[in-house]
Amino acid sequence: MTFQEKIKEYPVTLPASQGPLLKSVQDWAFSNGLTMLTDDPATAVHAPVTLHPSPFPRSVFDESIEAQRGFNTLYSKISSFTNNNWLDKIIDKLAPSDPDFTGKLWETHKLSLVDGKPIQPLTLGLFRSDYMIDQKDGNLTPKQVEFNTVSVSFGGLTSKVADLHRYLAATGAYGDDAKFDLDDIPRSNSISELANGLAQAHKAYVAQNGAQKSKTAVLAVVEKHEKNAIDQRHLEYQLWDNHGIVTHRVSMLEATKVTEIRDLDGVSRLYYNDAEVSVVYFREGYSPDHFPTQAHWDARLYLEKNRAIKCPSVYTQLAGAKKVQQILTDKSELLKFVSEKDIGPLVNTFVEILPLGEDSEGGKRAEQLARTEPERFVLKPQREGGGNNIYKQDIPGFLEKLPKNEWSAYILMELINPPVIQNHILRKGELFTGDTLSELGVFGTVLWNSENGEILHNDTTGWLLRTKLESSNEGGVAAGFGCIDGVYLVD
Amino acid sequence: MTFQEKIKEYPVTLPASQGPLLKSVQDWAFSNGLTMLTDDPATAVHAPVTLHPSPFPRSVFDESIEAQRGFNTLYSKISSFTNNNWLDKIIDKLAPSDPDFTGKLWETHKLSLVDGKPIQPLTLGLFRSDYMIDQKDGNLTPKQVEFNTVSVSFGGLTSKVADLHRYLAATGAYGDDAKFDLDDIPRSNSISELANGLAQAHKAYVAQNGAQKSKTAVLAVVEKHEKNAIDQRHLEYQLWDNHGIVTHRVSMLEATKVTEIRDLDGVSRLYYNDAEVSVVYFREGYSPDHFPTQAHWDARLYLEKNRAIKCPSVYTQLAGAKKVQQILTDKSELLKFVSEKDIGPLVNTFVEILPLGEDSEGGKRAEQLARTEPERFVLKPQREGGGNNIYKQDIPGFLEKLPKNEWSAYILMELINPPVIQNHILRKGELFTGDTLSELGVFGTVLWNSENGEILHNDTTGWLLRTKLESSNEGGVAAGFGCIDGVYLVD
Repeated sequence: MTFQEKIKEYPVTLPASQGPLLKSVQDWAFSNGLTMLTDDPATAVHAPVTLHPSPFPRSVFDESIEAQRGFNTLYSKISSFTNNNWLDKIIDKLAPSDPDFTGKLWETHKLSLVDGKPIQPLTLGLFRSDYMIDQKDGNLTPKQVEFNTVSVSFGGLTSKVADLHRYLAATGAYGDDAKFDLDDIPRSNSISELANGLAQAHKAYVAQNGAQKSKTAVLAVVEKHEKNAIDQRHLEYQLWDNHGIVTHRVSMLEATKVTEIRDLDGVSRLYYNDAEVSVVYFREGYSPDHFPTQAHWDARLYLEKNRAIKCPSVYTQLAGAKKVQQILTDKSELLKFVSEKDIGPLVNTFVEILPLGEDSEGGKRAEQLARTEPERFVLKPQREGGGNNIYKQDIPGFLEKLPKNEWSAYILMELINPPVIQNHILRKGELFTGDTLSELGVFGTVLWNSENGEILHNDTTGWLLRTKLESSNEGGVAAGFGCIDGVYLVD
Repeated sequence: MTFQEKIKEYPVTLPASQGPLLKSVQDWAFSNGLTMLTDDPATAVHAPVTLHPSPFPRSVFDESIEAQRGFNTLYSKISSFTNNNWLDKIIDKLAPSDPDFTGKLWETHKLSLVDGKPIQPLTLGLFRSDYMIDQKDGNLTPKQVEFNTVSVSFGGLTSKVADLHRYLAATGAYGDDAKFDLDDIPRSNSISELANGLAQAHKAYVAQNGAQKSKTAVLAVVEKHEKNAIDQRHLEYQLWDNHGIVTHRVSMLEATKVTEIRDLDGVSRLYYNDAEVSVVYFREGYSPDHFPTQAHWDARLYLEKNRAIKCPSVYTQLAGAKKVQQILTDKSELLKFVSEKDIGPLVNTFVEILPLGEDSEGGKRAEQLARTEPERFVLKPQREGGGNNIYKQDIPGFLEKLPKNEWSAYILMELINPPVIQNHILRKGELFTGDTLSELGVFGTVLWNSENGEILHNDTTGWLLRTKLESSNEGGVAAGFGCIDGVYLVD
């Protein structure tokens, strides 16, 4: 059965009595940690999930996974101090258009350097590349929506959703009308694999610094009232179970009070009580909201300017800017990092992205396309904000009103046309059935030396499918509009 | 350090800032299924737990575990149709004093027999023997509080609590002042072991009946709004993960509607849709509340009178009566089931239990002791109700007012004097610190042929420590007064 035929027979009919199936999903969630926190610290809610995994073309899935190691390499090189600090020039130019966030990150990065170098050359990336299925001309291909270099989430919960779907399918919970072959519902090993990435960095630190393994720990920097803490905790427990590594959790601001920097042999080392910190794993600091005061920026600098390996460094975080993504669609720029023979899998996922308000060839083309073929594009602000995208026919009018000197705060991105699939979403105990859109995220971990670009570890580390009702504008799972899905591979 | 010295240094001082420790406990619970359901089907609450495992004498722990296989054998023999149906005479006499429950169970059992025999001679017991530490004369020994033959609970959650305590101890979450050796905080493998018991019965059924393994399933009979469902689900998931056996869940009343009995080759077999039921696992039907109408009793008979193996059979459930426990303290009665050389480990756990309102030697002794040494005893109704026990000095006055013909509804049981230990209890996010009392439950599974008493499988299957504040009268974890604890073994 082709993918197009398969999605026509969705949604799978629910058993006449839905109660036991919904109960099965919820009880499984509460038994297996597929949960999110609530305002009441004593209770948790099941994570929002689809009842059934969404049909997904096997070739698109395989291509997306396949591209990850290449993307890991690419972004590790971009955020290394090689290639004449290629990233510097881009961020230098971008910073003024977003002084409060990009600008402050850029300043933090520069202040963290000692003699123009980072105190710790090793950097860890836990990345996620997001794709939608594009179905232009009947061909199904993965097209990259964005590349995330900081605080990628749902690596913990996605493993659980895949296991839930497999359990339901295997035990016949979907009823007699819904048969799935378990081979077509892959697992996502992102919990163990992302934890392994953290462990690799930890081990490299211990070896590099003659630290005592039993006295060394990972420091997770987390938001104070993080509802998605369980997603993070799964990695933490796996770090302990599989590698014997302890994680301590603090908020960025707390970190300056409960940790200290000790100078040993002229090296600034970070300590949490008696434990030397090997890796600072940032799950906070990815959004302007996380820096309400200068003290927060000071804390970020404090955490950057020491020997611990950062996941990610500020510099790596900056490499995730949309502007970078746009520039990389220019093949001559991409070839500075990837050899001609290796660019295929990456380039195949690119849509056209053009700069606005630039006196370049791309800038001119963007202005023209925005006027003549707006139906093919979306206008996105450089800085992710949610809800600020301008779609299709609205673009010309929007640009007309926008002063020309503010145009450069936007990029023009070719629209991806994903298939619409009917599915059932269970969110806080309520069932929604309707047309949905999905986005596949592929996780990757890479550990590298930013002074010479040498890669010490590079791995594909599972995947995530997020699905939302087509009728909702925003897809954030934590924010309350999307849900976690699983894939049901179709040839 | 001796046990008495150890408990003097309890409670372990909490870290100055308790927040991270409490958060660690709650997040761990939500990540690992240490949860209970709430009235809102979309949310769960962490199970009530002690922050630290309670000190427990290693010898008492070992003796309690040691006795379990013997108790499994004893109760399998009692609920077999051997020894001239020893149990029949006891229940026949007991039933009139509790016609609505014991009487109806007794009637159900008799109606289920065909030509005086059960349709399925194999019976599965998932038992739990409960003990308190007695510290008379400075000796620490386990004394049996009661033996449970039906719907024993917390075999799922106790494994999780032991793992939680081990995790907290190993990762230093208790702070620098609280050091535990992991070897002294044993795991309780009750999830996998109790599931294994169910699997043994399932396999025996498949072999016995030429059933198709893939088309055969376990039927769990559960209360409709069971808050402790996650405890049960853990066994269900393990049955699937380790043995590939599917479990279907129905309430007793529902069972008569969604299952059917098919006569094949003259044998009544139970079916849930297309699946032949191998084992009916009762987690409902242990309390008079579960039988509000005759339809419920009809449902219980319906589930009993077919080829599926019962866990437990009505007859086995009846063997858990307090009256049976009392009679077994008479050595001559015990020797009908256990050989002289094997009774030691069992008898050592017995306190004195005497019948009231009987014209026997025991009855006379009871009446005398109740008047002369009431401070040594508790008066318990035959039927467990909670809050109906009469303690010490209250006994003589109570008996005075009670018509003599109602005396036989009670037994006189020697008091156990457990040590009081300070500990911290976390319940629904609230922390309580105070004097606590604990009860150790030891799980055992036994599969036997009730026609000839032959035992096919007999195992000790983990343990449970329940702890409550001394100031609360009732210790029920699910009912809201007690919590789940772990043991910290002290030599």
